[in-house]
Amino acid sequence: MAFRQCGIVGLGLLGGSLALDLRAAFPEMEIIGVARRAETTRRAAAMHSGGMPVFTTLSHDLSVLQKTELIFLCTPVQTIIQQLAELANIVAPGTIITDVGSTKRMVMNAAVAALPATITFIGGHPMAGREQSGLEAAVVGLYTNATWALCVPAGAEAAGDNLAALITAIGACPHRIDAQTHDEIVARTSHLPHVVAAALANAVLGRNFDAVAQQFIAGGFRDTTRVAAGVPDMWRDILLTNRDQVLPALDDLLSELNNWREAVRTGDAPYLEALLTTAQQRREKV
Amino acid sequence: MAFRQCGIVGLGLLGGSLALDLRAAFPEMEIIGVARRAETTRRAAAMHSGGMPVFTTLSHDLSVLQKTELIFLCTPVQTIIQQLAELANIVAPGTIITDVGSTKRMVMNAAVAALPATITFIGGHPMAGREQSGLEAAVVGLYTNATWALCVPAGAEAAGDNLAALITAIGACPHRIDAQTHDEIVARTSHLPHVVAAALANAVLGRNFDAVAQQFIAGGFRDTTRVAAGVPDMWRDILLTNRDQVLPALDDLLSELNNWREAVRTGDAPYLEALLTTAQQRREKV
Repeated sequence: MAFRQCGIVGLGLLGGSLALDLRAAFPEMEIIGVARRAETTRRAAAMHSGGMPVFTTLSHDLSVLQKTELIFLCTPVQTIIQQLAELANIVAPGTIITDVGSTKRMVMNAAVAALPATITFIGGHPMAGREQSGLEAAVVGLYTNATWALCVPAGAEAAGDNLAALITAIGACPHRIDAQTHDEIVARTSHLPHVVAAALANAVLGRNFDAVAQQFIAGGFRDTTRVAAGVPDMWRDILLTNRDQVLPALDDLLSELNNWREAVRTGDAPYLEALLTTAQQRREKV
Repeated sequence: MAFRQCGIVGLGLLGGSLALDLRAAFPEMEIIGVARRAETTRRAAAMHSGGMPVFTTLSHDLSVLQKTELIFLCTPVQTIIQQLAELANIVAPGTIITDVGSTKRMVMNAAVAALPATITFIGGHPMAGREQSGLEAAVVGLYTNATWALCVPAGAEAAGDNLAALITAIGACPHRIDAQTHDEIVARTSHLPHVVAAALANAVLGRNFDAVAQQFIAGGFRDTTRVAAGVPDMWRDILLTNRDQVLPALDDLLSELNNWREAVRTGDAPYLEALLTTAQQRREKV
């Protein structure tokens, strides 16, 4: 079943890029955008794809979504949780709500608590992003070949299949997974790298970083700290809603770094080379 | 004064790319390549630029450099130190030797200890690299706009100017700096990021990393761990010859990471947001 209407709440990088891809894939679809700021809806109103406006309707108010078949929540995780409660009083029975938040257990639990049984919630998380953020960074094809996690509750398989078909139509790769396994994995493949990149930026680019040091910033530093440019409130919510998984991942990294520290401190050449060789071999496989 | 001959010892990514750029900038220059492995000199013999062979002469033996005006040592730092001692007995008075090693104090000290006063050593370090390594990864333009540190000893200013002119001719930006300041800065802008990327690769891609987790590797993880693919023996030498600077840099990072750990552990939202905001602002400036 193809969807005739789709709501997108939160028009940043993810929501904006999703709208561009949906418009290209489904020229007939009614696409309703909801954003808090007037500047954002103004910018969204100017977006076109193939000569057509990307958004059919734009609003600051969730109530515009009362007859929408499918709603994507593209806001920070704690905002998603608040918006689920608001939408419970707005949307019609049969509506499917999904999200693009980077943690899934708290969102899934909030949906169960907030929504009546007539509304289906399917958790979603596309593994896609860019260094830039906001609607101005939205691009066609952001999701091409990206893994798109789907947490489909028991009994919602048909809705899950329809959502997966839509995700496939915009070029992404739906991957069904339970919320617990998802959160465990992304704590290590996504959340920990963010903490590391941001901590490295803070440690290196502090008070002692001057114009001479700036000359000695090269590609390696830029790559390693790239994700630190991410939006703070989005990442605050991610880390706070996955604390129990991020903490052991961070402890494993600290333990590993303390091994490196000891190898450097003692000048242990064979151990250092072994650590470096392991890293090179593991990195080359991904 | 332009150089008529140039020797390049070590034909990996850095030496090979340097040869390509020198051949393009100086079609008349005699370029002598020295590499240990037969496979490398065979591959080097096949390299062309603008229809000309890149290398005039190739050898496995440093003695081929006895009448070479300028010699670049493009091997790992501890090998550079050994080769300086070997070259002391080979090269003619008036020869200028330089290097591309990532640490400078131990190389500068080794040059003073090994070389007679008739041989000039100028420490060098181009801030350039790629994820791939080896001669097969060598590319034209690797050094374009790259900062190229030069440690010019007192009395060697004229040789330093000639070397800087050659570096400018291949598109890089010579930056005169003392070895101590250089090593302090790159410990933080280059060596620490390498340790962090490699430790992150080791911590995440270990035994528990499976085919499902592989689906959740995205651009952020790839960026943050990219430099971990670097050559182990090169990085072993870098870390061992800059231990006293890498250690406090690593301790600053560990202290910063422990702040993040505490913010995650206690769920301190304002503190986490402050850490993330600082990182975003600092990262955006570089």
